[in-house]
Amino acid sequence: MTRTEPAVLYLRAKATRTRAEILSVAVDLASAAGLESLSIGRLATQLRMSKTGIFAHFGSKEKLQLATVDAAKQIFLEQVVKPGLASQRGLPRLRIMLESWLGYVERIVFRGGCFFAAASAEFDSRPGNVRDEIASLTKAWLTAMEREIAFAREKKQIKESTLPSQLAFELHAYVQEANWAFKLFDDKSAFSRARRAISGRLAEASRGLRITKIK
Amino acid sequence: MTRTEPAVLYLRAKATRTRAEILSVAVDLASAAGLESLSIGRLATQLRMSKTGIFAHFGSKEKLQLATVDAAKQIFLEQVVKPGLASQRGLPRLRIMLESWLGYVERIVFRGGCFFAAASAEFDSRPGNVRDEIASLTKAWLTAMEREIAFAREKKQIKESTLPSQLAFELHAYVQEANWAFKLFDDKSAFSRARRAISGRLAEASRGLRITKIK
Repeated sequence: MTRTEPAVLYLRAKATRTRAEILSVAVDLASAAGLESLSIGRLATQLRMSKTGIFAHFGSKEKLQLATVDAAKQIFLEQVVKPGLASQRGLPRLRIMLESWLGYVERIVFRGGCFFAAASAEFDSRPGNVRDEIASLTKAWLTAMEREIAFAREKKQIKESTLPSQLAFELHAYVQEANWAFKLFDDKSAFSRARRAISGRLAEASRGLRITKIK
Repeated sequence: MTRTEPAVLYLRAKATRTRAEILSVAVDLASAAGLESLSIGRLATQLRMSKTGIFAHFGSKEKLQLATVDAAKQIFLEQVVKPGLASQRGLPRLRIMLESWLGYVERIVFRGGCFFAAASAEFDSRPGNVRDEIASLTKAWLTAMEREIAFAREKKQIKESTLPSQLAFELHAYVQEANWAFKLFDDKSAFSRARRAISGRLAEASRGLRITKIK
């Protein structure tokens, strides 16, 4: 085993930091102007780096886009998925998943609102690796909700007649609509509407069960 | 009053036809690849016309984008708004508005799905005339739904406690979600989910009233 020189370690750490810095700017730019607008040239200007310096990190525009999607995924995992995992499974977890997702959109973590909403609208008609990755990450989030709903149904927290895929579709729709309305009309009331829609829908799905089973 | 020469009339008619033809291609391109990707050069290639020929019709990229939004609006009016206007006001009209909107997305009238969903996601972070026009058209459609809900409430077709802006938010969300899911996952079941969501939500909003007041 050879010992790595401190200078090499320093350079490696620096390279990593720079990659993370580039990606943080890239996620922000892509959420507002689109993943297609991300170019090595544009990032170089924004970051006051040489094009060669950025190119060395990613190699191609597609690789840069995929790395940007991955960076956005890490932020989503940290800010949206993690808070849910810490809570009790079923209805409580589902509520926290939805609330942390809404909160993340509301805080405008990215300048252009929800990164994945913007990216999926942009890439839905562009076949390729970037589209596939966005579709699979989005699907995973929808599936996580469905699974939580199925668990809640099993535990009699929601009605037997509830279809998990149907309820997930509706709840997911409210958050996406809030992101869309907020971004387009710059109107924060979209978030209170989404919250009212979520709590109304969940109340409806558990009507008659709450008093006897949960309370 | 001077009499216009037949040759001039012919040329004017031809110019109009050509403008309409250009815009039909432009709406289709923009719904899939985005309004920003619309360029006079790209259209010239697609239509086998000279750039000068297309430039003469629009003068600038922004004017071309605005004309494209207007052409999409005409299609929306014809295919979505008109069928609703022919029906009875209130709940019946609201149902037809939603069904013709869903049907229009389902038929993929434009290659990239709902033109306005794509355009609003693309332009929500780009201030300017194009964004303002998209926001105002989308708002008009949401307001038309709200107004129909308010009318339905007045006629006791839906519960007194229903907030028109809240119900419009939820119904609008289902159709947008169907467009989004269909485009991203290429899964037609999104439409049946949206239909189930709409009829479930409307049934909930009129629960207790239907039997006594409408039937």
